[in-house]
Amino acid sequence: MRHITLLTDFGTTEGEHTVLKGVIWSILPGAVIADLSHAIDPQNILQAALVLERTAFYFPDETIHVVVVDPGVGTERRGIAARFGSQFFVGPDNGVCTPLLERAEKEKAPVEIVELSNPEYWVHPVSPIFHGRDIFAPAGGHLAAGVPLASFGDPVEDVVRLHISEPFLKDGVLFGEVLHIDRFGNLICSPRRKDLEKLGDGCVYVGEEKIGPIHRTFGEKAVGELVAVYSPSDYLMVAVTNGDACTRLGVDTGTKVRYIPNRE
Amino acid sequence: MRHITLLTDFGTTEGEHTVLKGVIWSILPGAVIADLSHAIDPQNILQAALVLERTAFYFPDETIHVVVVDPGVGTERRGIAARFGSQFFVGPDNGVCTPLLERAEKEKAPVEIVELSNPEYWVHPVSPIFHGRDIFAPAGGHLAAGVPLASFGDPVEDVVRLHISEPFLKDGVLFGEVLHIDRFGNLICSPRRKDLEKLGDGCVYVGEEKIGPIHRTFGEKAVGELVAVYSPSDYLMVAVTNGDACTRLGVDTGTKVRYIPNRE
Amino acid sequence: MRHITLLTDFGTTEGEHTVLKGVIWSILPGAVIADLSHAIDPQNILQAALVLERTAFYFPDETIHVVVVDPGVGTERRGIAARFGSQFFVGPDNGVCTPLLERAEKEKAPVEIVELSNPEYWVHPVSPIFHGRDIFAPAGGHLAAGVPLASFGDPVEDVVRLHISEPFLKDGVLFGEVLHIDRFGNLICSPRRKDLEKLGDGCVYVGEEKIGPIHRTFGEKAVGELVAVYSPSDYLMVAVTNGDACTRLGVDTGTKVRYIPNRE
Repeated sequence: MRHITLLTDFGTTEGEHTVLKGVIWSILPGAVIADLSHAIDPQNILQAALVLERTAFYFPDETIHVVVVDPGVGTERRGIAARFGSQFFVGPDNGVCTPLLERAEKEKAPVEIVELSNPEYWVHPVSPIFHGRDIFAPAGGHLAAGVPLASFGDPVEDVVRLHISEPFLKDGVLFGEVLHIDRFGNLICSPRRKDLEKLGDGCVYVGEEKIGPIHRTFGEKAVGELVAVYSPSDYLMVAVTNGDACTRLGVDTGTKVRYIPNRE
Repeated sequence: MRHITLLTDFGTTEGEHTVLKGVIWSILPGAVIADLSHAIDPQNILQAALVLERTAFYFPDETIHVVVVDPGVGTERRGIAARFGSQFFVGPDNGVCTPLLERAEKEKAPVEIVELSNPEYWVHPVSPIFHGRDIFAPAGGHLAAGVPLASFGDPVEDVVRLHISEPFLKDGVLFGEVLHIDRFGNLICSPRRKDLEKLGDGCVYVGEEKIGPIHRTFGEKAVGELVAVYSPSDYLMVAVTNGDACTRLGVDTGTKVRYIPNRE
Repeated sequence: MRHITLLTDFGTTEGEHTVLKGVIWSILPGAVIADLSHAIDPQNILQAALVLERTAFYFPDETIHVVVVDPGVGTERRGIAARFGSQFFVGPDNGVCTPLLERAEKEKAPVEIVELSNPEYWVHPVSPIFHGRDIFAPAGGHLAAGVPLASFGDPVEDVVRLHISEPFLKDGVLFGEVLHIDRFGNLICSPRRKDLEKLGDGCVYVGEEKIGPIHRTFGEKAVGELVAVYSPSDYLMVAVTNGDACTRLGVDTGTKVRYIPNRE
């Protein structure tokens, strides 16, 4: 049995996000489907990629992640289905799968990518502006029903890769940026636990604001104080205990952050 | 096995939308249920009817669509359950099912409508202001469990019909209006592909703004340009490529649109 | 078969709410899970408790309600799993379960509470700021799979209780307050049907505004008029027929309400 998730920028008002379930159930009645998120900012490929990175590998092996954040729908951009290690991906070839691909490559896990070019697995007529309904959801349903990847189309060798900002070291200081701001106003920043731990103790700055050392949890600072911790996915995260760091600091995604190690 | 969808104006904060699932599962454990939408504007019957029209027929045969957009709850308005061709409907008799009914009539598909008057299929005590929980959700659960329509109550011959604005031809020009504005700011307009294609090439206007001819997909215009296409449900749709047509044009639902065919 | 619900303050943008499903499905493939709500105001324990009270007992027996509204995550606050009568609860020991506990006590139904201290049922490594993913969701999955409560840890005798404002009688007048404002702008107030019915006919006031007697349903007043009714959970509710009482009266949670019985 293969589980399915849906990740789109459709919102949940219009019903189109649920049509994907209707299409999948028409192929595989009762398929088990979760809504990963439908609240990606319209056409924000990076945001969707970061959600995938944080969540996909918590699902059972062979879960199929159907992603429809697709500014290029109806143009020459390809649709793809892929295996990235333990997880499957279905969606547009626009870089949204990059974190899954790079993790599989880093772990030397199996990678297989095919183009969704076999019209036998589409719902006809295909709307030129809604491949989610007519190409991606059906591929998800057929994959869940056990159709092998190779049946959907030819292998893809030159998948599109998304550039995700990476932190860098200069003069002993680690530079990065705010990648994402969550619902609580926490700042998720590009430096990761593995980058930071090798630098030893030090101090986090957001813009010119001094935050302090990295704590284990919010509760180590008083309510209302700024605190740096590791996010549940091991990114550097800047928060206000029981508060909203984004509003407090007046920052946005892209704001620069620094980690200055203590001099020995 | 029959799938179920839920379409309400409850929002998703309060938990009441999920109580419907609790009630259904108490009747049919593990029933497969999708949230079609819970973000219908409060008591907006037309909006719910349009969502149903766009989505219901993408679900497997005998899917049960439970609709609770119900400004008349507790008054004399009836509750109904119905078969409209391949799909079932449960909800208030306030016109919200009109698009499903009219499609079934047009296709000469079977139509059967009954009143939900048999208290054996209600949850007691029935709240006079929450028939969704106490009458409609239980009917959905029992229908999914295989109870025949006729068991719920007597046939309804005079179901309430909703007036949905239809486009009309005058002096060779097709007149319509903006029915709905989606999350991306796209304008969904009342003229449909079948109305427009029979007029041949021409030009779309929204209010006094000239949009141009109908394109196959957004990608045929540069980012930021206005473009007319067909929506995934074959309505005339006016969009801005990777942008927001509603904000750009400053329009609302009800704004007049025209299609002026080219002179030969 | 045991159903599961999820109640959090995560929002539905980030995907973290769905990670809980991934974790549960990794333990119990295909487990049936509903999203009770993910839109609790950040860290609002009272709001989550009121949602639970209104909804939990509409689910089938032995449904497991996993609650992650957890301002104390990573501190000394305990995680607990419990049976409260027919329903199971998993979440932080911060009082969010109080309405379920008190209902079970009132009904003399079985109550069993244990601490989630057995690391065998955690997902490792445990993030100090995301016990929802690493402790509560796994406990929900294992409970659904049939693991007995006693396996998770030692009994808890001194569970944290939340203070929920109770109405009180003074000089024959019942005093209470607005507990909650729903999506429609209806005011849910602390007096309950059982408190009010024993006082006989009377008149509801919100602040200094006279609302009138308690009606059976909105439809008994004209569109746009203020009306008092019982909510579907038998709280006193003040509404505007097809309108928004909160905006009309300019009130907030905590606003005082009174019920003055008619003199005989």
